[in-house]
Amino acid sequence: MKRIIKLDTTVSIISHAAVGGREERLGPLGERFDFCDTTNLFGQKTFELSEGEMGRVALNTALTKANLSHENLELLVAGDLQNQCVGTSLGLSSFGIPFVGVYGACSTCTEALIVLSSIMNTGEHIAYGGAVTSSHNCSAERQFRTPLEYGGQRPPSAQWTSTAAGAFVLGRDAGAPRISEFTIGKMVDGATVDGTNMGAAMSFAAADTILSYFDESGASPFDFDFIVTGDLGRVGSDILCDIVSKEIPGFDRLHADCGLLLYDSKTQDAHSGASGCGTSASVLASHFLPMMERGLIKRILFMSTGALMSPSSVLQGVNIAGIAPLIKIELESTKKKS
Amino acid sequence: MKRIIKLDTTVSIISHAAVGGREERLGPLGERFDFCDTTNLFGQKTFELSEGEMGRVALNTALTKANLSHENLELLVAGDLQNQCVGTSLGLSSFGIPFVGVYGACSTCTEALIVLSSIMNTGEHIAYGGAVTSSHNCSAERQFRTPLEYGGQRPPSAQWTSTAAGAFVLGRDAGAPRISEFTIGKMVDGATVDGTNMGAAMSFAAADTILSYFDESGASPFDFDFIVTGDLGRVGSDILCDIVSKEIPGFDRLHADCGLLLYDSKTQDAHSGASGCGTSASVLASHFLPMMERGLIKRILFMSTGALMSPSSVLQGVNIAGIAPLIKIELESTKKKS
Repeated sequence: MKRIIKLDTTVSIISHAAVGGREERLGPLGERFDFCDTTNLFGQKTFELSEGEMGRVALNTALTKANLSHENLELLVAGDLQNQCVGTSLGLSSFGIPFVGVYGACSTCTEALIVLSSIMNTGEHIAYGGAVTSSHNCSAERQFRTPLEYGGQRPPSAQWTSTAAGAFVLGRDAGAPRISEFTIGKMVDGATVDGTNMGAAMSFAAADTILSYFDESGASPFDFDFIVTGDLGRVGSDILCDIVSKEIPGFDRLHADCGLLLYDSKTQDAHSGASGCGTSASVLASHFLPMMERGLIKRILFMSTGALMSPSSVLQGVNIAGIAPLIKIELESTKKKS
Repeated sequence: MKRIIKLDTTVSIISHAAVGGREERLGPLGERFDFCDTTNLFGQKTFELSEGEMGRVALNTALTKANLSHENLELLVAGDLQNQCVGTSLGLSSFGIPFVGVYGACSTCTEALIVLSSIMNTGEHIAYGGAVTSSHNCSAERQFRTPLEYGGQRPPSAQWTSTAAGAFVLGRDAGAPRISEFTIGKMVDGATVDGTNMGAAMSFAAADTILSYFDESGASPFDFDFIVTGDLGRVGSDILCDIVSKEIPGFDRLHADCGLLLYDSKTQDAHSGASGCGTSASVLASHFLPMMERGLIKRILFMSTGALMSPSSVLQGVNIAGIAPLIKIELESTKKKS
């Protein structure tokens, strides 16, 4: 089965923004975020509305950086972790942009970029489209695990759901980092029912996507500056490197995980690392894309990672499936050379 | 803003299946369903697993009708109403097909067909893809409103969430009903906070999409055999016809609503009609596509309709946004003639 799909029109990330809360500001990437609200509330009355507002601010910021208005966007692809992605609809409906809602748990950032770039490749009249992904620690914890007030103990394998959003404006600028191909993830049994060990559940899916990509493409892993995963955290990253290094010796030197980049493991109590679909979105927007724009790196594989579960399915003891869609992001000049 | 996107490769619906529960079997379309389980449980222990199993049976049936196996499918786009679309992952992960999860509330069927046909248009090596959408009355009611055991009174505007799934296999057969273009819906404020009147909340979004489509395409509404909405029910259909008939006189003669077709309003206690994202999927699969294949109709506009809300957002008194993506389905021969 061929799994790599190439885009034959130029679809590039012309602008991006990262928005976060208190912990994200205190982390190593905090100063590179475009906007942080250390109250985590973003001026809203509920956590759900706060998450929506975070996405709205992220998209507005990305639009402003690109000298565009919401009226220039012909399509918006977005999603979040809340019940029925309501964070997204609460925050983004006021823009009045045609909307496709996606759900891939914490893999939603890459999924949204795949769907958006595919539709832009189809509808060649679309000049500009937007992708937004968000997660909020307080709306996610009370929905997936326990209400914050309960003060439950977290095991070392647990991750900290980030309060973060990333927004991306895609256009046709060949000079900007381009999404040139992608591989859609399979739902892979994570072999665990433990909703506090999502890194393990997602790591097998990430390994499946990476090994499938290199098997099919014939590319050398060392053609890439980084092979990035979304939020495997410490536990999941170790499992992934164990699996993939058997096939690709030296893989651990290429691997970077957004969940390990967002917080400082020494000073911030995030246990195994950050999670939530705002994690990979905000780290892509605040860290990898700026490095690419400064010419420090030229080509990455970027994979958000998701654990497909609900509060009901976890209580019912069903195995959690992981998923890991992948996009190749590269500077056009690199492509011409090859 | 241009909103109609045309597919330039042939993407057609080569096979389809409808699966339902007890009420669906008793309804006017019941005999045309491929499979019904009058226990509503589909052999499973929980309602959540039942919903997954329904989707699995639907996809297997559609594959069998097309003389294909799951290994022929290179891509699966699917979604449901459950928390984080877990019905879909529980039911479909065992196929091992690359997966894109979508969420558009009850609009998910059309949304999935749009995303799938766009990616198939991009990745021209994809010969076959699948789209699956499901809803289950018992998993939806306890999640969105009250547990079934509570026995809450339902107002006349309420709809009955269908226990139904529809599956579609898309291929490249020019003789089969073809998806030739689509319009992505906007999130339109439904001007209500009432989670038991979703028809009203969705009707404004449906009107927006229809009027935008005809304004941009210049087509005559009477070129179409039907203009179909997903699950507006009695209340929402009346509002839609009121709005659209002012611009398109005679619109009510063209309009059909899947939510009004699934149950018998005289003998089945569905109040304003059927809802749930299995509704439009199963009615498309059991009613409209077979009519097209028999040559009775040649061209329809098909629009699933969704109310973007969560249990939290309804309790928090936030206005419900509606959304209504649209696809044009036609027999290729009709297109050549025009």
